[in-house]
Amino acid sequence: MQRYKGIIAYDGSGFSGYQVQPNKRTVQLELETALAKLHKGTQVKVTASGRTDAGVHAKGQVIHFDSPLAIPEDRWVIALNSLLPEDVSVISVEKVDHSFHARFSAVGKEYRYLLYLSDRRDPFQRNFAVQYPYSLNLQAMKEASQFFLGTHDFTSFCASNTDVEDKVRTIQTISIEWLEDRNMLILRFVGNGFLYNMVRILVGTLLEVGTGRLEPADIPKILEAKDRRLAGKTAPAHGLYLWKVYY
Amino acid sequence: MQRYKGIIAYDGSGFSGYQVQPNKRTVQLELETALAKLHKGTQVKVTASGRTDAGVHAKGQVIHFDSPLAIPEDRWVIALNSLLPEDVSVISVEKVDHSFHARFSAVGKEYRYLLYLSDRRDPFQRNFAVQYPYSLNLQAMKEASQFFLGTHDFTSFCASNTDVEDKVRTIQTISIEWLEDRNMLILRFVGNGFLYNMVRILVGTLLEVGTGRLEPADIPKILEAKDRRLAGKTAPAHGLYLWKVYY
Repeated sequence: MQRYKGIIAYDGSGFSGYQVQPNKRTVQLELETALAKLHKGTQVKVTASGRTDAGVHAKGQVIHFDSPLAIPEDRWVIALNSLLPEDVSVISVEKVDHSFHARFSAVGKEYRYLLYLSDRRDPFQRNFAVQYPYSLNLQAMKEASQFFLGTHDFTSFCASNTDVEDKVRTIQTISIEWLEDRNMLILRFVGNGFLYNMVRILVGTLLEVGTGRLEPADIPKILEAKDRRLAGKTAPAHGLYLWKVYY
Repeated sequence: MQRYKGIIAYDGSGFSGYQVQPNKRTVQLELETALAKLHKGTQVKVTASGRTDAGVHAKGQVIHFDSPLAIPEDRWVIALNSLLPEDVSVISVEKVDHSFHARFSAVGKEYRYLLYLSDRRDPFQRNFAVQYPYSLNLQAMKEASQFFLGTHDFTSFCASNTDVEDKVRTIQTISIEWLEDRNMLILRFVGNGFLYNMVRILVGTLLEVGTGRLEPADIPKILEAKDRRLAGKTAPAHGLYLWKVYY
């Protein structure tokens, strides 16, 4: 058995998220179906760095699987892509040691969130960026984002229906970039790990700062309170991209 | 009755083209359905600058319609967009004189064709650019494109099943731009009018020049022969955008 690490990209629009669920079209199901075809019907389990929700995209999701097949790395890419539907694509496959685990070996992740700032709908962006028609105070949003950097208990920024005990996470980088020619605001988050819905709640909260409903100085109080109700709304799924996983 | 000119954009992926056909989802049907709702069920005919085929996109299709309703121009945009599905969007509406006709008043059109030059599939581009895995000689393509400029009989570059008699058209501009950071080749065509499938056949022929199967010097001979079989294949629909209509 050889362990393989794969980097994959998917358009989340047509999926009920990454993880297998009964009677749903998921990314994991498509990957395992393609691998089973390559293994003459034998089930091959795929493990990802983490799940993504329905509608969430990935530019650099990482998976691993074990196979008895001695296929060269670049041939794996071609073989899998020929069996996968058009909304999932394998970018690379490499041999790794058995100690590699897509989830447990990950030391950090980068997520990006795309906001299309316009009062006009754009049919070409509708699944790939969240349209936002109100003007935003980017300076206030950047100020507010600084309070999230470092190690904090992110209970206020985590979906309340989670069973994760330890809600302390470290965020290394948050950047907010405005691409004027595309009317696009790109929010980048790099951290050692993110709680369920955390990036989407961070974005929803930064939007409240951008519109003036919250002040940057409110952020430390919201972190302190450990109360989900004080943070902003969960921003929609289709603006979110799992961009990169660090090992 | 007031005549209105509208500029609309659509993602062609989910449509059987622009023009109404029985039992098919078309852009015209969606526009006329939205207008009928605004007119309490009365049918309102929409006339476009021209049809687009299944899968072809529009960034700047132009339509006109007549209405007894005295709605301000910007309210038309909001009202129509609230009734239209997400893959069609009205960009602007303006009052025009009754002599304006979306099709017959048009003096020119710009089309763009997007090629994603990569040997890896990109799930995010799959409906919006045509993936092309072979390397292309851009200099040869640019040279070849010069032979199309000016006024020519484009019989060799028109679908053979057309009933248009006069196949003489004038192309003012062809540009070929390489966006290295996006691996994207953008071909722009501006002309006084284009025959059925003409842009897609021009692109297919320029690709044959790019791969060396044709020489730039072959283009004048193909134009001269007035024989569709000598030109390249019809490039796929989903790379094509009706970008702008000139009046």
